Amino acid sequence: MKNRIGNIFSLTSFGESHGPAMGGVIDGMPAGVPINLDDIQFFVNRRRPGLSSVTSARAEADRVHVLSGVFEGVTLGTPIGFVVYNEGQHSSDYDALKDCYRPSHADFTYEAKFGRRDHRGGGRASARETVSRVVAGAFAMQALNRMGITIRSKVIEAAGLPEPSPYYMEELTETIEDARRKGDTIGGRIRCIIHGVPAGLGEPVFDKLSAQLAYAMMSIPAAKAFEMGIGRDFARKMGSQVIDQFATADDGSITTLTNHSAGIQGGISNGQEINFTVTFKPVATLMRPLPTVDRQGNPVTLQPTGRHDVCVVPRAVPIVEAMAAIVLLDNVLMNRASQI
Amino acid sequence: MKNRIGNIFSLTSFGESHGPAMGGVIDGMPAGVPINLDDIQFFVNRRRPGLSSVTSARAEADRVHVLSGVFEGVTLGTPIGFVVYNEGQHSSDYDALKDCYRPSHADFTYEAKFGRRDHRGGGRASARETVSRVVAGAFAMQALNRMGITIRSKVIEAAGLPEPSPYYMEELTETIEDARRKGDTIGGRIRCIIHGVPAGLGEPVFDKLSAQLAYAMMSIPAAKAFEMGIGRDFARKMGSQVIDQFATADDGSITTLTNHSAGIQGGISNGQEINFTVTFKPVATLMRPLPTVDRQGNPVTLQPTGRHDVCVVPRAVPIVEAMAAIVLLDNVLMNRASQI
Amino acid sequence: MKNRIGNIFSLTSFGESHGPAMGGVIDGMPAGVPINLDDIQFFVNRRRPGLSSVTSARAEADRVHVLSGVFEGVTLGTPIGFVVYNEGQHSSDYDALKDCYRPSHADFTYEAKFGRRDHRGGGRASARETVSRVVAGAFAMQALNRMGITIRSKVIEAAGLPEPSPYYMEELTETIEDARRKGDTIGGRIRCIIHGVPAGLGEPVFDKLSAQLAYAMMSIPAAKAFEMGIGRDFARKMGSQVIDQFATADDGSITTLTNHSAGIQGGISNGQEINFTVTFKPVATLMRPLPTVDRQGNPVTLQPTGRHDVCVVPRAVPIVEAMAAIVLLDNVLMNRASQI
Amino acid sequence: MKNRIGNIFSLTSFGESHGPAMGGVIDGMPAGVPINLDDIQFFVNRRRPGLSSVTSARAEADRVHVLSGVFEGVTLGTPIGFVVYNEGQHSSDYDALKDCYRPSHADFTYEAKFGRRDHRGGGRASARETVSRVVAGAFAMQALNRMGITIRSKVIEAAGLPEPSPYYMEELTETIEDARRKGDTIGGRIRCIIHGVPAGLGEPVFDKLSAQLAYAMMSIPAAKAFEMGIGRDFARKMGSQVIDQFATADDGSITTLTNHSAGIQGGISNGQEINFTVTFKPVATLMRPLPTVDRQGNPVTLQPTGRHDVCVVPRAVPIVEAMAAIVLLDNVLMNRASQI
Repeated sequence: MKNRIGNIFSLTSFGESHGPAMGGVIDGMPAGVPINLDDIQFFVNRRRPGLSSVTSARAEADRVHVLSGVFEGVTLGTPIGFVVYNEGQHSSDYDALKDCYRPSHADFTYEAKFGRRDHRGGGRASARETVSRVVAGAFAMQALNRMGITIRSKVIEAAGLPEPSPYYMEELTETIEDARRKGDTIGGRIRCIIHGVPAGLGEPVFDKLSAQLAYAMMSIPAAKAFEMGIGRDFARKMGSQVIDQFATADDGSITTLTNHSAGIQGGISNGQEINFTVTFKPVATLMRPLPTVDRQGNPVTLQPTGRHDVCVVPRAVPIVEAMAAIVLLDNVLMNRASQI
Repeated sequence: MKNRIGNIFSLTSFGESHGPAMGGVIDGMPAGVPINLDDIQFFVNRRRPGLSSVTSARAEADRVHVLSGVFEGVTLGTPIGFVVYNEGQHSSDYDALKDCYRPSHADFTYEAKFGRRDHRGGGRASARETVSRVVAGAFAMQALNRMGITIRSKVIEAAGLPEPSPYYMEELTETIEDARRKGDTIGGRIRCIIHGVPAGLGEPVFDKLSAQLAYAMMSIPAAKAFEMGIGRDFARKMGSQVIDQFATADDGSITTLTNHSAGIQGGISNGQEINFTVTFKPVATLMRPLPTVDRQGNPVTLQPTGRHDVCVVPRAVPIVEAMAAIVLLDNVLMNRASQI
Repeated sequence: MKNRIGNIFSLTSFGESHGPAMGGVIDGMPAGVPINLDDIQFFVNRRRPGLSSVTSARAEADRVHVLSGVFEGVTLGTPIGFVVYNEGQHSSDYDALKDCYRPSHADFTYEAKFGRRDHRGGGRASARETVSRVVAGAFAMQALNRMGITIRSKVIEAAGLPEPSPYYMEELTETIEDARRKGDTIGGRIRCIIHGVPAGLGEPVFDKLSAQLAYAMMSIPAAKAFEMGIGRDFARKMGSQVIDQFATADDGSITTLTNHSAGIQGGISNGQEINFTVTFKPVATLMRPLPTVDRQGNPVTLQPTGRHDVCVVPRAVPIVEAMAAIVLLDNVLMNRASQI
Repeated sequence: MKNRIGNIFSLTSFGESHGPAMGGVIDGMPAGVPINLDDIQFFVNRRRPGLSSVTSARAEADRVHVLSGVFEGVTLGTPIGFVVYNEGQHSSDYDALKDCYRPSHADFTYEAKFGRRDHRGGGRASARETVSRVVAGAFAMQALNRMGITIRSKVIEAAGLPEPSPYYMEELTETIEDARRKGDTIGGRIRCIIHGVPAGLGEPVFDKLSAQLAYAMMSIPAAKAFEMGIGRDFARKMGSQVIDQFATADDGSITTLTNHSAGIQGGISNGQEINFTVTFKPVATLMRPLPTVDRQGNPVTLQPTGRHDVCVVPRAVPIVEAMAAIVLLDNVLMNRASQI
């Protein structure tokens, strides 16, 4: 609980954005998985800003230091400790935030909970904490890939513009530039597709695979909706429209003719493709003066500082994949105990 | 994990729909809560079928037997064991299902996971398991109410018809009757609103209050989408449209002028109303002959038997409230450890 | 936590001794284990009083009602709910205890913790709660036996009399009769021996198999010491006296020439016999007037009522075996996730 | 589980002795605790070798690097990540151990579990992992001290020589020197005494405070016995000899005239001094040629290398205190949820 996710395969993470380092402990990684540290680093680099014109131009090194659990290129079965140092922070940029609450950020709620907070760059509430998720997900992915499980995500909608539109990129670029000029931000949606999942993962009642995925995705900063398959649109369908008829494949195995269930039935994977969609709100860091209050309730106006992403959704793509990988590997391992 | 939800306040549930009983153990209920068992029973009765013309007419007694943890009308702090006996089952009705898989049910996935299943009435996968959730939620609610926290849910959309429409009830009745004639089913959406939650509940990173609610709701049978506030529609908004400006209330406390955040910021409650929406698919139990396959992959056709709900969404209303209550009470207790 | 033991295979128990029933939920029992309910009942009967002249003569039926999780004689992989009704209690016998604290019982500490207690027969603190442990252990045992793992315990010392003495039974009977005449009680020690455990069970650091066994045994009422192998006497040995030299068995497998390690090295089973000893204090229920205080601190004298065991140690034998079985099965299942 | 201890206040640890670093994440530390990092370092230094003539002369810096969770000298309520770098290892010293199993070490069992191991200096099984426990315990201690709870341990027996003997130090020095000359090792016992614990800590059934302490202590390398109060000797006592009579103190509070219960009754603290004893076996690292087998079962003889402690028991003193502190703080926080 608190800063830990997973039952058998788990990540316990730590780190404030302007403290010395982010990091975590990956516990329950099975022994015997060959680890390619370059691939781990490559995966982590995908969440860095500055890699596309859409996101901001800050450079973050984010080098992953693995401190245990891997020996001669293979996992030992012991916990994998890792750190990613925080570098190049300009903590003094945040002095103005020490005593006041940015609207729609976690400043106020952290103080309500803990009686204090690290005000520099959002502290623990900064999206920088997701670097630990991505490291753990990268490790999980290397185990999953050996089992033939692959996870891919992409942005399917940004600023209300759906990806299948023929003018998508043009319209999107224009929308983003417009938002940037106005100091505004935009949200979007990410679809995640998982192939190669064997039937039988997930637990029947509370730990449904869909429920675990929902939890993992909604724990990502700015996530506001989780939908299996067509999600909200199920409310507009008749049962006869969304039923998945069984059929026998050429190789004699049992499959389904359609996949409205999005790969999960009764909370348990059925061997078909798993797909779900996560909606992210536009982030609250607007590049314009913002009226708010200080700790005593006095009105103050915050001036924008630094550079910030107009749209963080592309950076969330590897985070969604990482969280899915953590959930999937945990369930693969849990499922080994299902039968005598 | 598996059949348990909650950290400090938890429910571990058990029961197959055609076994002797459903039940569970509520662990972590604090001592000193006066319990009104009539209110518990009343709350449980709300999920029974046959209480509205919309849902089916089967009569289920569902009497809750409390076996421990309450003494002289007050909780002891010890675990609350309870059972609800299964009565009036017609298990032989299900003989035809022994060797074949109902489409979009959990028959196939349970066998993939466990190598066997109780085929009678869905077994553990039956929505009947939700009776244990409602009992636990009813207990949690009595503790929450003493703290001034209230939880209310209602159906806001069914069969694509939004509740604010002036012709809602007429159109809905017509749609349901039409579906009943065709042996079809319809889905819908439930909105849940929680008042009186103090600021500070939820954990910063994985155990965000929103993530815990998503997990709890998506664990309900047939749930397909979870949305905080306007949910999916956040993708179409600019940041400036959904920011919640802080203000100082007349009593000097800090509040927000709007509540786009739906009561949770950075994963932690901010003292405003919490609201979210859950979408349920139309259930797969169609009242028409259904082609499927048996365990060996041979084609068979299932004939409809018994009576089943056209739309189960109204019955899910107390389940949504119960799951919300379980999550809320757990977080109230967890939060007591946030400061020294 | 609280009323739950185990990670993958777990028991969540409930029940006060004078409430309607004891019971629990066994979660994580793997599917596919044939269950002999007569053997379950037989195992549970072993902890009943009145089965030997050493223990008291009360008759308790303790019939186990299995409510879920077993279908056509085989486990389903779903949770096993069970109850054992409390019958023949004479709750009014305990009216005198309502406002005062029995010395060395849990009356005072329960009130300190919960602000109240069920004073009838010890409530949740009664050794009667162990019936739930024994039921869960009996289920675990049926799974373990199929894997070739067997668990046997016996009393090796009572009232300071070691079992190997030639006059053991005579002396013990005399000591017990003497204690009974004086209204006194005696303690003792139980040794547990486990055969057939494969090498590799237990986790390296905190969840050492020895640590988990210590936890499980010390959670039994009246347990006061846990010792692996010669236990306390290790302090008097030189390293050279207790080292276990490796050797190669006739079949080529690696074994040890001695077993000072008692089957566990570095917290992990090494394939040799596991053995440990648990010491139980003499119970505090003396059959003589006892001076104590009431809730306000006023002196009162408790008069003995009912019949109570002079020595409960023989009744703890199946409890020790049950707790060992719960730990072992959990570790067998956990260990399936150790390697990719 | 696996590499984590604690429910609300928890440590997840990592590190192999010859990898880059040891470390961990302390989760659940309440916000608002002033932290003196010098005191943390001082506490950690106590487990270093070379600080007494009894233990070995290696120098280890063991500087604790705190990476998160403390801001401006006070805990934030967020997780505390920390690392302690491994320095000055001579990994090539261990090449001879790569393919063979040291007797009574964890070499064989780790390979049985994980299929591989880091053979350098014991890897994860090295007692060096205890540095993470001591760091976490040092943090817990600073919170406990503010509540008036103090924990003190000392060696009460070594090599069979009890500490109260008037010739204790002389005899002990002689025994150690004799063991050193022979390349042998000695074990011992540590008593831990805890003052200031309020009544009410611990959970009634499985998570008895005594059971949690037993688990924590038996998870320390080389621990072989755990005893509450007089422990094993309870088997030789009559109930009348070990009952703790209640009395009313001058200030009107309820206390006990004796403390045979060692501060815990029915698994819950009663406000008296808690005391227990842990027995450690003599370590298996003998300074003499040792016959053993290699991975294929062939006989080999290991030659002693490096310098090793004759008696590690004094170094375990701060480890015992640290583990007690972790358990106590966790139970203080858990207990806040006991009543509404």
